[in-house]
Amino acid sequence: MAKIGVADTTFSRINMAEFAIGTIKKNSKHQIERYTVPGMKDLPVACKILFEKYNCDIVIALGMAGPKPIDKQCSHEASLGLQWCQLMANKHIMEVFVHADETNDDRGLYQIAKNRTEKHALNAIELLKGSEALSKYAGMGKRQGKEDEGPVKTK
Amino acid sequence: MAKIGVADTTFSRINMAEFAIGTIKKNSKHQIERYTVPGMKDLPVACKILFEKYNCDIVIALGMAGPKPIDKQCSHEASLGLQWCQLMANKHIMEVFVHADETNDDRGLYQIAKNRTEKHALNAIELLKGSEALSKYAGMGKRQGKEDEGPVKTK
Amino acid sequence: MAKIGVADTTFSRINMAEFAIGTIKKNSKHQIERYTVPGMKDLPVACKILFEKYNCDIVIALGMAGPKPIDKQCSHEASLGLQWCQLMANKHIMEVFVHADETNDDRGLYQIAKNRTEKHALNAIELLKGSEALSKYAGMGKRQGKEDEGPVKTK
Amino acid sequence: MAKIGVADTTFSRINMAEFAIGTIKKNSKHQIERYTVPGMKDLPVACKILFEKYNCDIVIALGMAGPKPIDKQCSHEASLGLQWCQLMANKHIMEVFVHADETNDDRGLYQIAKNRTEKHALNAIELLKGSEALSKYAGMGKRQGKEDEGPVKTK
Amino acid sequence: MAKIGVADTTFSRINMAEFAIGTIKKNSKHQIERYTVPGMKDLPVACKILFEKYNCDIVIALGMAGPKPIDKQCSHEASLGLQWCQLMANKHIMEVFVHADETNDDRGLYQIAKNRTEKHALNAIELLKGSEALSKYAGMGKRQGKEDEGPVKTK
Repeated sequence: MAKIGVADTTFSRINMAEFAIGTIKKNSKHQIERYTVPGMKDLPVACKILFEKYNCDIVIALGMAGPKPIDKQCSHEASLGLQWCQLMANKHIMEVFVHADETNDDRGLYQIAKNRTEKHALNAIELLKGSEALSKYAGMGKRQGKEDEGPVKTK
Repeated sequence: MAKIGVADTTFSRINMAEFAIGTIKKNSKHQIERYTVPGMKDLPVACKILFEKYNCDIVIALGMAGPKPIDKQCSHEASLGLQWCQLMANKHIMEVFVHADETNDDRGLYQIAKNRTEKHALNAIELLKGSEALSKYAGMGKRQGKEDEGPVKTK
Repeated sequence: MAKIGVADTTFSRINMAEFAIGTIKKNSKHQIERYTVPGMKDLPVACKILFEKYNCDIVIALGMAGPKPIDKQCSHEASLGLQWCQLMANKHIMEVFVHADETNDDRGLYQIAKNRTEKHALNAIELLKGSEALSKYAGMGKRQGKEDEGPVKTK
Repeated sequence: MAKIGVADTTFSRINMAEFAIGTIKKNSKHQIERYTVPGMKDLPVACKILFEKYNCDIVIALGMAGPKPIDKQCSHEASLGLQWCQLMANKHIMEVFVHADETNDDRGLYQIAKNRTEKHALNAIELLKGSEALSKYAGMGKRQGKEDEGPVKTK
Repeated sequence: MAKIGVADTTFSRINMAEFAIGTIKKNSKHQIERYTVPGMKDLPVACKILFEKYNCDIVIALGMAGPKPIDKQCSHEASLGLQWCQLMANKHIMEVFVHADETNDDRGLYQIAKNRTEKHALNAIELLKGSEALSKYAGMGKRQGKEDEGPVKTK
């Protein structure tokens, strides 16, 4: 069994960690390590600590971004931090960010957050199986947070 | 007891370090190490030195950004520096940046700076307790510098 | 013989890895190592693992970006991750990204993806031959995904 | 006595190093090491060399940016380079950048460059004294290149 | 004698390496090492390899960027890669990028590319002489790719 880190925030208006933990428990016997930080930009170092101190094999980083330009800048900075963290650790982080402007009501936001988190929790489980575990879905237009787009139609 | 670094600037129009130091003293017995630099972009290396030379366990980085596009660019560069610093040190930095265009009078700016600094000082104290100390607030829509937004309403 | 990594995504609506693998097999006897991840931003660490764990000599990173501003931000973050990865590994990654807004129908997208992937697979094979293997084409206005522009006309 | 690096450019239309060197000599007995490069983007590695080969304790990086969008991109890249450099060296760089669009005549540009360079040369001297040397000015709204803004007025 | 790396691309519509090599041969006895890659974003790791595998003392990185927003993003990513590369190697890279939108005809583009490349090849030769070789031109408003602007006029 592997160990999956689940990093989440108090900024988020949805308890996304619950979706991640539920999906992992339902679909695997992997251990789970939780780490809650204030906001998105605190996630990269939390992931680094989950890798190095807690020996996680993969981390699911859960965040919610506000609707303003400064919020996009924050999510960009957090994403770059997650890139460096992965390259320093040689391990995957599933970035699950929900943007407040993806929908215009709380109900929609909840659905996106749930769908995106659960699908990426499954992706994390697949990646732990090896580099070709997801190859059967390559080029299939998979989406998280909404319906799959599917492959292009050329006929 | 841990050691908390408080890094602040002469550029800021508000002595944010006072709020941070007051909150830490009131709510903990942690040691405090102060480091004052000219501006935001001098904060990342100050934090690095606070971690490596002064052995701080966490740092609160306090900065104020002007209202112009070049100021947003500066805060973006400072934020990325703080990301790298955290990943190099494997320790948290609470980024407490106030933007001059968040409000249109000095009084409002002061309130935002005070509220954001004090709440993040408390966050720092919580993070020192461990990775799940903040989990009870996960997904609660916590905000610093203004009222909490609270969790989504789906019913 | 060298080992070429082929990293691709389930997000892409086209199985770009097939084009890359077909071109490599047709034009060389290099070994191929496949790695499929969910999306673009998962490619950099996959490339890093292909270099370090699978001993690849070069990697072809295949991704498709959506048409929205947030998608451009994602591809920018992925590109920066690929830059760091290459500098850490001292090995080339051929970045083959297709943007949904490069054309307005699935057929066109398919042609761009096929042409760009195949040409960059050939570039990877050339780079494995040495630092001057491509010098004969220097300044020739080569393009991937569309017709070459050719050198400037100054007469 | 410490050693202060002064890095400047041939791109700049003002000999900013003269202001820096004059201020350092007038206010301290620190040694000075000069490094002149073509443009802004050559400054970060010059600073790195000043730290590692010339053993500078702090560097003042002097640059001038043109007025076009591509010039803003250049100064952003240079600033990020300076961030990494500082974090790698654990030493401060005073970034003194003047932007051609800050004013509309040569005379104004000269005044900004002189004022900003001299004030940051003094900041460098202060930082060499220790982490709290500037704390007496914390939150005072200090500015370089123009008049101080001063602290907020809340009464 | 030192060794100068010349990195160029097949994407460029002008054989900029010829200008660089011609200028180096005419003005010095330095060795030259050539490295041709597909595009701009392949230059940073090529420079890294020129430093580490080929022992170059300095590199001239020659690239041409297209006129679209995505091309600006590419050149930004390449520039950041060059920044990191220099900081990792402690050696200079002369970034010589030509942007297709700097002029509106092939002839003008050729002149810019030739002028910028030749001037930066001379800059590389000067930097090899030491940190103050260019100090005599500090603040002189030197430009590459066009006429020098010269120092500000304050009288």
